[in-house]
Amino acid sequence: MSFNTFGKLFRFTTWGESHGPAIGCIIDGCPPLIQVKEQDIQKELDKRKPGQSKFTTQRKESDKVQILSGVFEGKTTGTPISLIIYNEDMRSKDYKNIKDKFRPGHADFTYFKKYGIRDYRGGGRSSARETAARVAAGAIAKKVLQKKLGKKFRISAAVTQLGILGCDTTKWNDKIIYKNPFFCPDNSMLKTWEKYLLSIRKAGSSCGAIIEVRAKGIPTGLGAPIYSKLDADIASAMMSINAVKGVNIGSGMNSAQLSGEENSDEISLNKKKLKFNSNNAGGILGGISSGQEIIVSFAVKPTSSILKSRKTINKFGKNTSISVRGRHDPCVGIRAVPIGEAMLSCVLLDHYLMNKAQCN
Amino acid sequence: MSFNTFGKLFRFTTWGESHGPAIGCIIDGCPPLIQVKEQDIQKELDKRKPGQSKFTTQRKESDKVQILSGVFEGKTTGTPISLIIYNEDMRSKDYKNIKDKFRPGHADFTYFKKYGIRDYRGGGRSSARETAARVAAGAIAKKVLQKKLGKKFRISAAVTQLGILGCDTTKWNDKIIYKNPFFCPDNSMLKTWEKYLLSIRKAGSSCGAIIEVRAKGIPTGLGAPIYSKLDADIASAMMSINAVKGVNIGSGMNSAQLSGEENSDEISLNKKKLKFNSNNAGGILGGISSGQEIIVSFAVKPTSSILKSRKTINKFGKNTSISVRGRHDPCVGIRAVPIGEAMLSCVLLDHYLMNKAQCN
Amino acid sequence: MSFNTFGKLFRFTTWGESHGPAIGCIIDGCPPLIQVKEQDIQKELDKRKPGQSKFTTQRKESDKVQILSGVFEGKTTGTPISLIIYNEDMRSKDYKNIKDKFRPGHADFTYFKKYGIRDYRGGGRSSARETAARVAAGAIAKKVLQKKLGKKFRISAAVTQLGILGCDTTKWNDKIIYKNPFFCPDNSMLKTWEKYLLSIRKAGSSCGAIIEVRAKGIPTGLGAPIYSKLDADIASAMMSINAVKGVNIGSGMNSAQLSGEENSDEISLNKKKLKFNSNNAGGILGGISSGQEIIVSFAVKPTSSILKSRKTINKFGKNTSISVRGRHDPCVGIRAVPIGEAMLSCVLLDHYLMNKAQCN
Amino acid sequence: MSFNTFGKLFRFTTWGESHGPAIGCIIDGCPPLIQVKEQDIQKELDKRKPGQSKFTTQRKESDKVQILSGVFEGKTTGTPISLIIYNEDMRSKDYKNIKDKFRPGHADFTYFKKYGIRDYRGGGRSSARETAARVAAGAIAKKVLQKKLGKKFRISAAVTQLGILGCDTTKWNDKIIYKNPFFCPDNSMLKTWEKYLLSIRKAGSSCGAIIEVRAKGIPTGLGAPIYSKLDADIASAMMSINAVKGVNIGSGMNSAQLSGEENSDEISLNKKKLKFNSNNAGGILGGISSGQEIIVSFAVKPTSSILKSRKTINKFGKNTSISVRGRHDPCVGIRAVPIGEAMLSCVLLDHYLMNKAQCN
Repeated sequence: MSFNTFGKLFRFTTWGESHGPAIGCIIDGCPPLIQVKEQDIQKELDKRKPGQSKFTTQRKESDKVQILSGVFEGKTTGTPISLIIYNEDMRSKDYKNIKDKFRPGHADFTYFKKYGIRDYRGGGRSSARETAARVAAGAIAKKVLQKKLGKKFRISAAVTQLGILGCDTTKWNDKIIYKNPFFCPDNSMLKTWEKYLLSIRKAGSSCGAIIEVRAKGIPTGLGAPIYSKLDADIASAMMSINAVKGVNIGSGMNSAQLSGEENSDEISLNKKKLKFNSNNAGGILGGISSGQEIIVSFAVKPTSSILKSRKTINKFGKNTSISVRGRHDPCVGIRAVPIGEAMLSCVLLDHYLMNKAQCN
Repeated sequence: MSFNTFGKLFRFTTWGESHGPAIGCIIDGCPPLIQVKEQDIQKELDKRKPGQSKFTTQRKESDKVQILSGVFEGKTTGTPISLIIYNEDMRSKDYKNIKDKFRPGHADFTYFKKYGIRDYRGGGRSSARETAARVAAGAIAKKVLQKKLGKKFRISAAVTQLGILGCDTTKWNDKIIYKNPFFCPDNSMLKTWEKYLLSIRKAGSSCGAIIEVRAKGIPTGLGAPIYSKLDADIASAMMSINAVKGVNIGSGMNSAQLSGEENSDEISLNKKKLKFNSNNAGGILGGISSGQEIIVSFAVKPTSSILKSRKTINKFGKNTSISVRGRHDPCVGIRAVPIGEAMLSCVLLDHYLMNKAQCN
Repeated sequence: MSFNTFGKLFRFTTWGESHGPAIGCIIDGCPPLIQVKEQDIQKELDKRKPGQSKFTTQRKESDKVQILSGVFEGKTTGTPISLIIYNEDMRSKDYKNIKDKFRPGHADFTYFKKYGIRDYRGGGRSSARETAARVAAGAIAKKVLQKKLGKKFRISAAVTQLGILGCDTTKWNDKIIYKNPFFCPDNSMLKTWEKYLLSIRKAGSSCGAIIEVRAKGIPTGLGAPIYSKLDADIASAMMSINAVKGVNIGSGMNSAQLSGEENSDEISLNKKKLKFNSNNAGGILGGISSGQEIIVSFAVKPTSSILKSRKTINKFGKNTSISVRGRHDPCVGIRAVPIGEAMLSCVLLDHYLMNKAQCN
Repeated sequence: MSFNTFGKLFRFTTWGESHGPAIGCIIDGCPPLIQVKEQDIQKELDKRKPGQSKFTTQRKESDKVQILSGVFEGKTTGTPISLIIYNEDMRSKDYKNIKDKFRPGHADFTYFKKYGIRDYRGGGRSSARETAARVAAGAIAKKVLQKKLGKKFRISAAVTQLGILGCDTTKWNDKIIYKNPFFCPDNSMLKTWEKYLLSIRKAGSSCGAIIEVRAKGIPTGLGAPIYSKLDADIASAMMSINAVKGVNIGSGMNSAQLSGEENSDEISLNKKKLKFNSNNAGGILGGISSGQEIIVSFAVKPTSSILKSRKTINKFGKNTSISVRGRHDPCVGIRAVPIGEAMLSCVLLDHYLMNKAQCN
């Protein structure tokens, strides 16, 4: 069971509401003797921190993380690591006027129907604020992978499609991603994307995005068929991110249109080095990593909280309309980039440990 | 942990290899007092049975299921239900010539690298034959859902894209799906698809497919945020099916291209009846069912075992080539239709039980 | 997997070290709409609080609990409940002189061997301080059970044997338990026990104890055969408490000496009321509650940290000796009383929810 | 969740009823490349086979096990191992006269109340027949442990108390255990026990027993605090065996009566060899193995199915009496010996794998 826990051997449990006193997570199953500093986690958190550009929510959160347990004299001890981030800029009053209304496209309606109660302030538990806790967990997963897999290991993520505009992924440049407000890997698209997103913001609308996550240096053999296939766990991880509606591994949905000979990645050996002629599989065959780069992408739907007026009902069963004025991202997809990176790190570490248990 | 087990409260564990003596599954957590006959399961199994048309593998399997436990005097007792299907038409010799080669696009290479050993006969455990066991489990899930949700509950699945050819899903007709060899829901496409698939078969090639699964009559409130969101569990379920590379909920990957106002499904009440103006969400908001129809689709890559010669290596580390002559489906996606139906049934029942535990 | 998580549907995860900044727990799967105040939890925590009598450790901890999430406007929301207790009286220097030595009978040696590192301050994670977090979780479980089972539900625990001295359990009086420093249910033994424990304390020694936990008003049908039998889960729960070495259900170890006719509890109906003539089964048959009172007992070994000098080795592999001067309970078993109560509450609620899911 | 599944990384799921067509189990998570033959499993099954002496049930079962999957060319492949044992001597008619009555001390009443239906033939799922499936799983766990831990590893179990008669465990002799009908390790007690058990059988009564299980050659570091402590998992494992009512680790319940200095096992080094001066801890400190011999004991209550007439009720709510004539063991505890051995093997392997994942 895993309502608020993710993972099997490397497990994290997140807690906290958007406008409660704090959010946080507990990491259980982390190997001991890994060097972890608050700064390692902070670095990752800063990537998804709100208020960094005009294209993300203006909520001001320093998102300072504290380690409360599990690290002793700078090293993990193998016991649970408790991380806490206090909430700061909680303008709960922004939500008073929508407390009885269900925002279309939001979890408001379903949370209320399921639990019979909901913390309406900022979406409560359903807020994307929860993802800060995952990014913190992912930062620790990354530290472990770096130690276990060495320098070959490399993970990165970027927005590869902003609304209707794609980018050229063959121009992928890790170094620019977190240096532009769209987390775009292709320098040549920055201007176009900026213009596009400004127009959307101005219109009080929003757009969706596609995020791609890539991991290099992953050993062959990670993945536990049949129901903990590496790709099945990745799909679950990505789909658990707020607003995600689709997940692709390698060629993904597009593989339906390929022929058998186009799709199957030919294998050859050149000077004892294994080579695949293509990577439609996204680095995963039969649910197990093949040693190729792991390639995952997922779609984030457009922000549902928009200025434009939308028809809805309230909790008293009356028809009404809503226009959300709070502080919102015109494209929530952008901040999903470090989250995708964190989730993939966690899944990979989890499978690394599982494989170590059963097969090495 | 769940290497070969799927589900949380309604759990099934599958076992068996393509060319071993039998395959089967154990269902644990099934509610008691549900009427189940072997015939109920057989009916579903017959849908994915090989050898039914020239478009599916010519392997002859009667796929007769036997109930070995958990049903007493025609009713489930709440104890584990053990189902067994003996393998019959096992031409293992077909595989002798490829026993040391890794078929590109197959799990051959990764299983061997992970475990250091593999049952090469027909793909062993990685064979799609395993899915018969899931269909059997799904048949029981369906019986339980029918009893618990009543007549409103309805689940169906179909191929909505065959290779490069789509169909018109507004013409969806449940009644024709299992009466045509492509499990197509749109009568108008049958001729075109037949011609297309014949040409692919003749060329010794294969094609992919997109399968869509729909469920009606699902109550509001199923889904357990954050990491057992209904959509996260569905994504994991579908991605665990052999050859699946992408999963969409509702508008799926396409939602990246929608604007906020196009995407968010407006809500209204008409004579006390709740109405959503659209269903981009695929019936799931914040990981919880909204009461709308659940809509899921997934892409199945083209069959990797093809006649056309492909470059590969063998287990001795030599370059070689391969051409697979066995009995294979030109489009494995077709037989994934009842599997998708089964997996969704299992996920829905699982969440129905979880919701019953926590919230009702 | 459950390194630091207990439970299946009602799950809590504890974290924190004896001398770190704080300890706490996350409760996941709690039903919504349960009224919970910090005071409800504090009341239970105060029972196990150190420093309340001369027979328990003199460490001063106010053990003030704070609710950080999952409760909104006084009611649970169905989302994770995060509880935190800050550590206060951390005299870490008390432990400097034993930081390299392994205390016999302690987890020092095994933690160091397993993890290659240990937080030696007060036992770190292996300290009984962790149990405060469980008591907090148990307080919430109790609130849920009270709402779900109504007034019939009653749980209580007591020390029934202090070292070599038993008490008369037929004189069990709930009201006096938390009013005497030994948490003894039998008024007639208080004087004798006081004299006995004073002599042990004076000698710089310690003694063990047996704790009995009883629960009334438990419905028939809780328990999930075979491997989540109610008694199997209770045994696991109790054995997970620090220093526990044995667990009995009903007649327990003593049942080996009974004859078949003495042991099997005869059943009869009197005016439509079911009656068992005895309760050797401790309220559990075939792993399922029978409707009788649940009776569990467990043995807590004597405190291993004693003044008397003991032979041991240090982490450099040298023979040495140790005498522990810190603040310790002469009988740790006493403070295990509220812990046993908390653990049984959690197991019962967990099975209540599981039974609701599968069978009601 | 684990209704009928035991274990975390090495998991087995059992299925089947006493008088159904077969029983069996699926083992998931077994490491690959372990040599396993049906004969390895059969050898263990033969130890608990009924009908081997006049002191065990006269039901005739050859209990022939078949491997249906997961083993290829004599070696495990890392995929699920399915084992089946067909039932043979099913005299269901023996149970007709008790089909509506609840046998006191049995699971009859609770199964019926929980599920609303029960397979009354021979106890159905609650029959001790289920334990054959565990013994089969344990046989495989033992093979893995033998390969991983080498020759130092040794596990054995025996009856150390038969009803009111103990034996001298310092005279423990592995070689005689399965050569006497009481699975007694002390040669000097055989005559006395025989006389005693004959008298009980003659009286139509039954007696309980205490079984002790010992494991040598277990490395330091197995066990996952806090809630998967090695002893907590052992307690759960043993308590899940039919008719078990108490579990001790090392000095167990008796440790309550020891003083701190008697109880804590002193440690010393002699020529670089670690030595504990005693083993009250039963080889486990803080939930982690210390490298000492693991010592576990558990009590099995007397057989509830006895000839002597007992008061009970039937399912129509009427008072009645019952006298069970079927084929029953005068002391079911005896056949629990190989079961205890199997369960401990499974727990140890499970923790061996968990430790490998997190700590090595």
